[in-house]
Amino acid sequence: MEKVGTCADEGNSQPKLLHEKHICQEKANEERIMHSEKYISDFSNIYSTDLLPTRNGEKCTEQFLIEVLRILLNHIKKTYDGESKVLDFHHPHQLLEGLEGFNLELSDQPEPLEQILVDCSDTLKYSIKTGHPRYFNQLSCGLDIIGLAGEWLTATANTNMFTYEIAPVFIIMEEIVLKKMQEIIGWGENEADGIFSPGGTISNLYSLQAARYKYFPMVKTKGMAALPQIVIFTSEQSHYSFKKASAILGIGTDNVIAIKCDERGKMIPSDLEDKILKAKRQGQHPFYVSATAGTTVYGAFDPLITIADICKRYGLWMHVDAAWGGGLLLSKKHRYKMNGIERANSVTWNPHKIMGVPLQCSAILIRQKGLLQACNQQCADYLFQMDKPYDTAYDTGDKTIQCGRHVDIFKLWLMWKAKGSCGFELQINRCLELSEYLYNKLQSKSNFELVFRDKPEYTNVCFWYIPPSLEHVPRDKEWKARLHKIAPQIKARMMEEGTVMVSYQPQGDKPNFFRMVFSNPASKKSDVDFLLEEIERLGKGL
Amino acid sequence: MEKVGTCADEGNSQPKLLHEKHICQEKANEERIMHSEKYISDFSNIYSTDLLPTRNGEKCTEQFLIEVLRILLNHIKKTYDGESKVLDFHHPHQLLEGLEGFNLELSDQPEPLEQILVDCSDTLKYSIKTGHPRYFNQLSCGLDIIGLAGEWLTATANTNMFTYEIAPVFIIMEEIVLKKMQEIIGWGENEADGIFSPGGTISNLYSLQAARYKYFPMVKTKGMAALPQIVIFTSEQSHYSFKKASAILGIGTDNVIAIKCDERGKMIPSDLEDKILKAKRQGQHPFYVSATAGTTVYGAFDPLITIADICKRYGLWMHVDAAWGGGLLLSKKHRYKMNGIERANSVTWNPHKIMGVPLQCSAILIRQKGLLQACNQQCADYLFQMDKPYDTAYDTGDKTIQCGRHVDIFKLWLMWKAKGSCGFELQINRCLELSEYLYNKLQSKSNFELVFRDKPEYTNVCFWYIPPSLEHVPRDKEWKARLHKIAPQIKARMMEEGTVMVSYQPQGDKPNFFRMVFSNPASKKSDVDFLLEEIERLGKGL
Repeated sequence: MEKVGTCADEGNSQPKLLHEKHICQEKANEERIMHSEKYISDFSNIYSTDLLPTRNGEKCTEQFLIEVLRILLNHIKKTYDGESKVLDFHHPHQLLEGLEGFNLELSDQPEPLEQILVDCSDTLKYSIKTGHPRYFNQLSCGLDIIGLAGEWLTATANTNMFTYEIAPVFIIMEEIVLKKMQEIIGWGENEADGIFSPGGTISNLYSLQAARYKYFPMVKTKGMAALPQIVIFTSEQSHYSFKKASAILGIGTDNVIAIKCDERGKMIPSDLEDKILKAKRQGQHPFYVSATAGTTVYGAFDPLITIADICKRYGLWMHVDAAWGGGLLLSKKHRYKMNGIERANSVTWNPHKIMGVPLQCSAILIRQKGLLQACNQQCADYLFQMDKPYDTAYDTGDKTIQCGRHVDIFKLWLMWKAKGSCGFELQINRCLELSEYLYNKLQSKSNFELVFRDKPEYTNVCFWYIPPSLEHVPRDKEWKARLHKIAPQIKARMMEEGTVMVSYQPQGDKPNFFRMVFSNPASKKSDVDFLLEEIERLGKGL
Repeated sequence: MEKVGTCADEGNSQPKLLHEKHICQEKANEERIMHSEKYISDFSNIYSTDLLPTRNGEKCTEQFLIEVLRILLNHIKKTYDGESKVLDFHHPHQLLEGLEGFNLELSDQPEPLEQILVDCSDTLKYSIKTGHPRYFNQLSCGLDIIGLAGEWLTATANTNMFTYEIAPVFIIMEEIVLKKMQEIIGWGENEADGIFSPGGTISNLYSLQAARYKYFPMVKTKGMAALPQIVIFTSEQSHYSFKKASAILGIGTDNVIAIKCDERGKMIPSDLEDKILKAKRQGQHPFYVSATAGTTVYGAFDPLITIADICKRYGLWMHVDAAWGGGLLLSKKHRYKMNGIERANSVTWNPHKIMGVPLQCSAILIRQKGLLQACNQQCADYLFQMDKPYDTAYDTGDKTIQCGRHVDIFKLWLMWKAKGSCGFELQINRCLELSEYLYNKLQSKSNFELVFRDKPEYTNVCFWYIPPSLEHVPRDKEWKARLHKIAPQIKARMMEEGTVMVSYQPQGDKPNFFRMVFSNPASKKSDVDFLLEEIERLGKGL
C-alpha cells in the first residue's frame, strides 16, 4: 500500500488522509480547471445544439458541465465565506428591467452557451445564499453538500416515482427510509405506510384526506354531499395548511375549529375537549385532530399524550404535524418532547427542515397499511398494469394524489448513509444549543425582550428589539403601534445591506417581533452575536 | 484577438470555434481530471463532517463534488452511447437483499465518502437511463443538458418559491415564462394568471378547484355542503387525474361524467351536449368541461372549437388538459391542431413532456387574474407580511395549494434562453416526423397492426405485434385473449435484456397493445427500426 499523507490545510482540526502521490497533481489540476480565468473555454459560438445527444457532442457537453460546476462551486464557497453577503437586494421592477445586462426576457432565437453560463452566474449573484451562516429566514436553512450531490444525481437520473419499472432503486430507497422513519416514531414493523410528497402542506392534506376516507369511504365516489357536517380541530397556532387543505377538500375553512394555546403556544387540551363536545351538541361530526410538534412561530410541542387520550375517548383520528419538529425524534436528549407521537394515526415529517435535507423532502406517514392506496387509487391502465414481470406492489404511484412525482428520496437516503442517524442527532442538538445560547443572551440584554419567558423547547426564539426611543416611554397603545413598525424597518435595512436575514411577524395582539430559528448547520455563536449587534446597529436610531 | 480553431471532432457537421491556444491544455487536463483511474482521490477516511461548512472544508468539498461530476458525466455518456443498455433489470427483492455490495439499509454510523461515491455509481448503475435513445416508456423521455445544468443550479440555490424575499430571481422568471406561455396560447396581455405545480395531475386539480371557487365562492369557507350536486365532463380517454382530483376535492368520482370518443380517441361533442342536458334534467349542476389536447394513449386532440361553443352555450368552465400536447403550440406547422385553446378558461401544460424539460415542470394557466389568489390565500402572517419593503404582489406563494414550493422554473427558463422558441419548435417537429416514420413503417409490415388506421396527429403510435402463432388463426375471442398476453411478455423480455423500453396497455375491449411515443430528442430513425426488429426478435416464438 502507498504511503498516505494529509490533504488538510494548516489549522484544520480534522486531518484527512489521501494518497500523497496524487495530491500535488490533483491540486495543480484543480487550480487550473476550477480557478484560472485564463482557462475558460470560449463558448461564444457554441450552442445547445452542439451538446449531447448531438453526434460528437460529448466533449462540448463535458466542458460545458465543468464550467457549470465551476460556477456552482464558486457560489458554494461564497456561501460559506465569512466575508460574503447573504443577498444583493433588488426590487422586482429592477430585475424586470434587466440588471447590468442580466436580461430575463425570452426570445425566439437561441443564445450561445457563453451567455447561458453568464446567466447562471447572474442568477446566483442576485439570489439569496440560503446556506449562508447568517441566513435565518426560514425553517429550512443551510446547504448540505451530500444532499446537494444527491440532488444533482437525481436530476441526472431524471425519472419519475410512478412505478418500480422506471424508478427501481428510488422506490426501494423510499420504502427503506419510510420504514426507518416509522420505526423512529415508534410504530410496529409493517404496521404503517407512507409516501414522500411535495411539501408539508400537501402531507397534511394527505392525512386529512386519508382520515376522511377512513371514516367515510363513500366520499371517494359520492363526494362530500354524502357526509354529515364534518369538523376538524387544530390549535390556533398550528400551521395554516389545515385551512388550505380544508378549503381544497371541500370541508370548508369554517369547519376547522381552532383550539386555544397557552402563553408559549401549546394547545390547551381542556379547550380541545370542550370544543369537541360543543361541536357534537351542535350536530357537527368531529373526526380529526391535528396536534403540532414544533409550531412554526414559537416552536411549541403540543401535549401529545393528553391529546391522544382525548382522541381515543371520542374515536377521532390523531394527526401530528411534525413537519418542523420531526427531526427531533433523532435526538435522544430531546425526543421526550414528542412522547405520545407513537399513538398518532398519521405524522407529517419534513426532512428538509431541521435535518437539513435540500428542498423539497416531506413525508406523510400513515399508521394503516393500504389506506393511502384505497383512498387514492384509480388504476390507470397505462401505468399500473397488473401483468408485469415483477411484484407490482412496488408500483406505489397509485397511492398518491399525483401522477408523476419528483424523486425526493435519494438526497435524504444519501445523507442518512453519509451521516448515520448519529450524524443527524449531533447536527440537530447543536441547533438547539444555539437557540439556548441566544435565549441566554437575550435575557441578559435590557434592550431586547422575549415574547415568552420560558426557555425554548426547540430552536425558535421570538423577541422584540426595543430601540432607545421606546425604552423610557409608557407602554400604551401608541407604544405598541410604534413597536409594531420596528421589526419591519430593521428587516428592510438588513435586506438592503444584505448582512443577515431573519423573519418577523405579529401574532394575535402582539406587535411585530423577530422569530429566530436555527436549522442551518453552518451557523455559529458568532453569527448569533452578529445578528443581535446588527439589529442594534440598524435599529437604534428608529 | 487570438486566432480561433475548431473543437469539433472529425465528421461533426457543426464545427465549433474555440480559442486554439487553450484546447490542448484543456483536453489534457480534462482527460486527467475526468477519466484517469489513477487520478481518483482516496476518500476512504473522509466523512461528510469534513465538508463545508466545516472549517477548511473547501478543498474536500471541491474534490468530492468533482468526483460526483465524474460519476454523473459517466452516466450521461453511457446514456448516449449507442452500445449501452437502457437498464440492468433486477427484482425488488434483489435490490432489498443487496446487489454486489450495494446495501440500501441505513445505519446509525456514518459511511466514508468513498462509500458514498460508490453508492452514487451503484444507484445510477441500477437505474433506468431515461435519456437513452431507446427509452420510449413514458411521455417524458430524454435528458436535456441545459435543463440538467438548470436543475443542478436550482439545487445549489436551494430555495423555495413562497416569497420574492427568498426567491427574487426565480419569482420574476416564473412571471416572465408564464406570460410567454399565455401569449403563445393566444390570451391577451395581463388577462391571465398561473403557477408552476408539482405535475399535471395537480395542475388539473388547480383548474377544477379554481373553477369551483369561481362558480361557488362559498365553497372555501362552507365546504361542498353549501353547493348543489356539481358535475364535470371529460372524455373517456382523458387522463385519470380528473377522477383523482374529484375524489380529493370532495366532488366524488361518480360526478365525473365520461364523454364518448371516436375511434381515434377524440371527444364526440354531440355526446358532450347530450350529457350536459341529461345532467341538467336530473337536477345535477354542470359547471366544468375538460377537453384534452394530446391524450395519454392515442395522442388525440379533442375538437376544441366545438367544445368551446358548447361551454359558452351552457355557461361552463372550459379547461384544456394540454399536459402532453401543450408544447405543440410552439410548432407553426402543427399548432392548428389546438385551434380553440385560446377560448379556454384554463390550460394545463407540462414543459417536462414534449419540450424535454427535466422532471418536474408543469404549469397551470388560468384566464382570470386574481382567481388563484382568492381561491387559495390564507394570509399567513409569518410569510406574507404586508409591511415589506418591496411590492408584495410578487409574494406569489399564497396563490398555491402548497406552502413550500420547489423551484421548477429555472431549468425551463434556461432552456428557453438556450434554444429559443425556434429550438423547441425544431425539436418537437422532429418528434412528429419520427412518429410519421414509424406509422409508415408499420403500415408496410404484415405482422404489425395499427390500433387505429389514421395517420397520428401527435407522437403516439399504438400497435399490436402479431406473432407467427397468431397469424393464420381465426380472430375469435380466444385469439384476442392470446394476443392480450403478447405485449406483456415481449415487454418483460425487453426489460430482462435491457435493450429498449416501450409501454403497453389495454384500452376498453382492445387487448394489450404497444404505445410508442416520441419525446426524446436523442431518438433517431435507426432506433425506431431497432424497436420493431427487437419486438419481432423477442416475440416471434410466442
